[in-house]
Amino acid sequence: MSHGKQFTLYTHKGGPNGWKIAYFLTELGLSYESIYLDFGKNEQKASPHVDLNPNGRIPTIVDHSNNDFVLWESNAILTYLADKYDTEHKFSASTEDDKYKQLQWLFFQASGQGPYFGQLAWFTMYHPEKIPSAIERYTNEVKRVFKILDGELAKRQWLVGGKYSIADLSFISWTAAGVFFLAGTEYDVQKEVPHLHAWLQKMMERPAIAKVNAEKDALSKH
Amino acid sequence: MSHGKQFTLYTHKGGPNGWKIAYFLTELGLSYESIYLDFGKNEQKASPHVDLNPNGRIPTIVDHSNNDFVLWESNAILTYLADKYDTEHKFSASTEDDKYKQLQWLFFQASGQGPYFGQLAWFTMYHPEKIPSAIERYTNEVKRVFKILDGELAKRQWLVGGKYSIADLSFISWTAAGVFFLAGTEYDVQKEVPHLHAWLQKMMERPAIAKVNAEKDALSKH
Repeated sequence: MSHGKQFTLYTHKGGPNGWKIAYFLTELGLSYESIYLDFGKNEQKASPHVDLNPNGRIPTIVDHSNNDFVLWESNAILTYLADKYDTEHKFSASTEDDKYKQLQWLFFQASGQGPYFGQLAWFTMYHPEKIPSAIERYTNEVKRVFKILDGELAKRQWLVGGKYSIADLSFISWTAAGVFFLAGTEYDVQKEVPHLHAWLQKMMERPAIAKVNAEKDALSKH
Repeated sequence: MSHGKQFTLYTHKGGPNGWKIAYFLTELGLSYESIYLDFGKNEQKASPHVDLNPNGRIPTIVDHSNNDFVLWESNAILTYLADKYDTEHKFSASTEDDKYKQLQWLFFQASGQGPYFGQLAWFTMYHPEKIPSAIERYTNEVKRVFKILDGELAKRQWLVGGKYSIADLSFISWTAAGVFFLAGTEYDVQKEVPHLHAWLQKMMERPAIAKVNAEKDALSKH
């Protein structure tokens, strides 16, 4: 690697899953070089990316301090980074039971939030025909997931272990996307899911998250 | 627990994710009592299940040998069971790097296979109107995921660490469902993705998997 940084991050300017990794590497103070793939040119499905990640989706990391270890799937990456580089558990579960609760929320984020919120984006913005019943299905799923999180956050400030952790961080980008999708509807996030709203705000105000979001905003202006 | 077994498994007679846990508990030789929730009565979203799992989806386990520890999200459960009860790594990664590769495939299964195969089932069987473009979208996604797995399995017999592990096991039930969905089309699984086909067959023939599948078949006849 000629860039001299610890990680290479294959990512995308817009897609929510890549930003999760930028957030966490910044929280950890680790250095990384972002390579923004152009989906318009299908770069994510071409060499060199697809040689590292046969799924052809972002993000993918290469850890140059661990024999160029390659890993994809954003929440597997968060877990790897926490285990290797957050050994004091500043941002991750510190007990055995909490470790699996953290993993449970990471899987809920990956399987229950990302794909369904992503389908709403697809049917709203990209599907070749407008299908109101499909848009309704996925809008309802965004609201359902928001309610579940809100119910948990009504009982405690953070999802696992009494502190901000990768379980919470993993939800930032898709929750912000969900809020954006619902902004055009009658649904009032602050009123309907106040605990989720406060939780997202609190995370957005963290210096590391705000710094990465400023980089993201700057990129989207190009 | 009055049943005297080590685990209570909240599951469903048909849904693929619950059967993953039955497969693995049987591979490990651990005792469990299955509680089959009736989705027609919305039992998965009612007490006592929803008190254990706010997401209201199966599976959920209670480990009575670990202070009634509750966990949901099928692939988090597989990881927990492997870490706690497969300490000799008969069915799980035994090196640090392989542990994260295993997790990567578990996240790919949970986020890239389950939800998309599930959407195909939804639009084929349950959606209030027939939408050919949605069915086409998810049929193509099943084929795309099959191709990725087939490409990997062309290079090696098992996904991680040179042996059958929870990474492979996690794909059994949704891959079988995908084969079933495609059976009504012109797509010939054995011809198009021969390595995936052979891998699935090999897993289906394992005594633990065959035993659980026989139980599943018997239940579906009621």
